[in-house]
Amino acid sequence: MTQASDPVGASDTALTRIDGAHGILTYRGFRIEDVVAHLDYEAVVALLLRGPERDVGLVKEVTTELRARRALPSTLQHLLNALPPDTPPIDGFRTAVSAMDDVSRVYPPTKREALELIARSPTLVAHLHHASMGSRPVAPDPGLGHVANYLWMVEGVRPTPERIRALERYFVLLADHGVSASTYALRIVMSTRSDLASAVSAALGALKGPLHGGAPPEVLEMLDAVGSVDGVEAWVDRTLEQRGRIFGFGHPIYRVEDPRATLLRGFAKEVAAPHRYELARRFEEVALERLALRRPDQRLFTNVDFYGAVLLEAVGLPRSLFTPTFALARTVGWSAHALEQVAQGRLVRPPERYIGPAPRPWDDGRGPEGRV
Amino acid sequence: MTQASDPVGASDTALTRIDGAHGILTYRGFRIEDVVAHLDYEAVVALLLRGPERDVGLVKEVTTELRARRALPSTLQHLLNALPPDTPPIDGFRTAVSAMDDVSRVYPPTKREALELIARSPTLVAHLHHASMGSRPVAPDPGLGHVANYLWMVEGVRPTPERIRALERYFVLLADHGVSASTYALRIVMSTRSDLASAVSAALGALKGPLHGGAPPEVLEMLDAVGSVDGVEAWVDRTLEQRGRIFGFGHPIYRVEDPRATLLRGFAKEVAAPHRYELARRFEEVALERLALRRPDQRLFTNVDFYGAVLLEAVGLPRSLFTPTFALARTVGWSAHALEQVAQGRLVRPPERYIGPAPRPWDDGRGPEGRV
Repeated sequence: MTQASDPVGASDTALTRIDGAHGILTYRGFRIEDVVAHLDYEAVVALLLRGPERDVGLVKEVTTELRARRALPSTLQHLLNALPPDTPPIDGFRTAVSAMDDVSRVYPPTKREALELIARSPTLVAHLHHASMGSRPVAPDPGLGHVANYLWMVEGVRPTPERIRALERYFVLLADHGVSASTYALRIVMSTRSDLASAVSAALGALKGPLHGGAPPEVLEMLDAVGSVDGVEAWVDRTLEQRGRIFGFGHPIYRVEDPRATLLRGFAKEVAAPHRYELARRFEEVALERLALRRPDQRLFTNVDFYGAVLLEAVGLPRSLFTPTFALARTVGWSAHALEQVAQGRLVRPPERYIGPAPRPWDDGRGPEGRV
Repeated sequence: MTQASDPVGASDTALTRIDGAHGILTYRGFRIEDVVAHLDYEAVVALLLRGPERDVGLVKEVTTELRARRALPSTLQHLLNALPPDTPPIDGFRTAVSAMDDVSRVYPPTKREALELIARSPTLVAHLHHASMGSRPVAPDPGLGHVANYLWMVEGVRPTPERIRALERYFVLLADHGVSASTYALRIVMSTRSDLASAVSAALGALKGPLHGGAPPEVLEMLDAVGSVDGVEAWVDRTLEQRGRIFGFGHPIYRVEDPRATLLRGFAKEVAAPHRYELARRFEEVALERLALRRPDQRLFTNVDFYGAVLLEAVGLPRSLFTPTFALARTVGWSAHALEQVAQGRLVRPPERYIGPAPRPWDDGRGPEGRV
C-alpha cells in the first residue's frame, strides 16, 4: 500500500503462448512439438529462465547447478522429520518450500535462487514419499540428470532409458502453461514484493486443487473401476446418468485438442502396458462420444490429465506422487513467471465487484448482534 | 482442468465494500465507523462469517469457539520446534498454517475450520515470537477475549484495558478490505478446490510483501531516523531529493482519505506517548505537503500503515510482530472470502496477455541451445 503500486488485473507474459483456437502452444516462440523433440528438461529450464535473448552457455550452467544443489540443508531435513509421516507429499512439499529460508526471504529473487528451488524440489518430494511409506530416503545421484535422478530417488533402482525418456517428456510438456491459476497466485504474491518461497508455496496450494493439478490420480481410478475394454460403455453411461464426474476431459482455453494431450497420447502408448493403453484409448473414445452427445454446444477434448496419468503410471510412479510430479515439472515455469513479474514491477490489484448491500444505517432492525 | 471450470477474472464479494471516491468502507453494509464503535473482534468475526442474513446466536458461538480452540496440537508444536529459532514470525506463521493438516486438507472448508484457524493463529504467532526471543511461550488464558489473550501470550503480563481496546480497534479495522492482493491469491487457490490451509498460507505469503502488509515497521524506522519534530522538514526534503521511500502514504483505491486512517489517527492519539504522536503528526503534515507539491496530479493520503504503526507501537508490540498482527486481524476476512469463493464455485482463470514472440521455426538462428 504505497505510492509505487499500479493496479492491474492482467498478467503480461512472454514465456508461453497458448493459442487455444488453433491448438498451438509455444515456449518463447518455439512450438511444443519441437521443444519436446529436441530439448531435455535442463535445456527447457535454460530456455524459460533466460531473458528474451539467447543466453549461450546457460544450458551448461543450469545443468551443473541443478546437479550441485540437490541436497537438502539440515534445517529442511529437521522440518521434514517433524511432519507427521502420513503427510500427503503435495502438502509436505508446500510446507517445506514455505520453510526454505535459505533459498529466499528477500526481494527480488534471483535466477540462482530459482535454480536452487528447482534442484532441491525432487529431493523434497522423494523424501516425503519415503516418509509416507516408512522407507529410507535415497540420496541423489550426481551422475544422473534432473529427471532420471528423481526416478532414482523415488524408487531406489536404476530407471530404464525408456522410462527416463517418458518422464523427461512429461516434465518438458508440463514445464509451463501461461498464467494458470497456480501461476497467477504466484505472480500476485510476487507482486507485493514478497519472496520466492512464499510465491511458490502459494502456487503449490493452488495446484493441489482437483480443478488444477489434483485430478490425475482420479483418471486411473476410473480406469480401475471400468476394469476392461468391454466394460467401458456401460460404465461411462451409468456414470453420466448418475451425474458422476468423468476426469481428464475439457479445458478452459482450448477449443481444439491441447497439443500436449496429442503428444502425451503417443508417448503413453510407447511405455504403457498394451492392455492398459487399449483400455484408456477405448475409454477416451466412448467418453468423447457420449460427452459430445450430451453437450453438443460445447465440444470437449481430452486434456493433459488423461494420458498424463497413463504415462506416469507406466513410468512407475505411485499415484500419490502424480500431483507433486506435475508440480516438480512446473517449478521452472513458476520460477520464470516470478522473475518476469519482478521485472515488470507492478502490484497486481485484482478486478473486484461488490455484490452486497448498500451502506445502511446501524439500527435498521437487521443490525449485527454483539455490541460491546 | 475439467468441464466444471468457468473462466472468470473478477471476484464477486458481498463482504466489504470500498467506495474509494467517497472514503466509505462497509462490512456487510455497515459503515466501519459504526462497526468499530459498537463491535468487538468476536462480533466482527460473526458478522463476516455468517451468511448474508443475520444469524442470531452466532456471536456467542464464535466467542465460545475462539476461546476453546486456542491450543496448538502436538503435531504443530513439533513443527514449530523444528523451525530455526531465528525464523521471522511472518514466515513461521505461513509455514505453520500450511502444515495445519487437522484444520483442513479437504474441500470444501467449513465455518468450524475457519474458527479453528482464527482461534489458533495468535497462539502460533506468540509462540514464534518467543522462539525468536529465546523466551518460553505463554499459555493462552481462557478468561481473556481473543485480542486481549494475544497481547497476554506475547508479553506475559496483564494488558491494560486501554491497550486491549486500542488493539481491538486495530483488529476490527483490519479484519477485511475487499479483494486485496492476499485475498485474491487466497480466492484463486480456493477456486481450484484446494483447502483452507493452502489458501490462507498463500494469503500470508502475499501479505508479507512491503507493497501489501510488510511496510508498517518502516514507518517507525522513518520516525526514529527523524528523531524530533524539529528535524522533520529537513529529513523529508532530503529523502525525497535522494529519491528515498516515504512509507505510509497512498493507496491504489482511495481518492480521499481512507476512513480507517482517519479512525486510526484518533485511536493512536489516545494511546501513544504524546511526543511520539506529535512527531508522527508533524511528519504526516510535512510529507503530505511535500508529496502534493511533487505530484500535483496525484494527491496522496495517509494510509493505514502510518497510524497503524504508531498505534501498534503504543500498544507495546515489537516491530517484528506488526505484519503478523495485521495478518491475525485479517484471518477472519480471508476465511470469509474462502467460504464465499466456495459458495460461488467457479475456477478463477486469470486475464492473461501474451507479449512474447510469435511462433517461429526451430532453426531460425536464434534457437535454443542444448538439443538432446
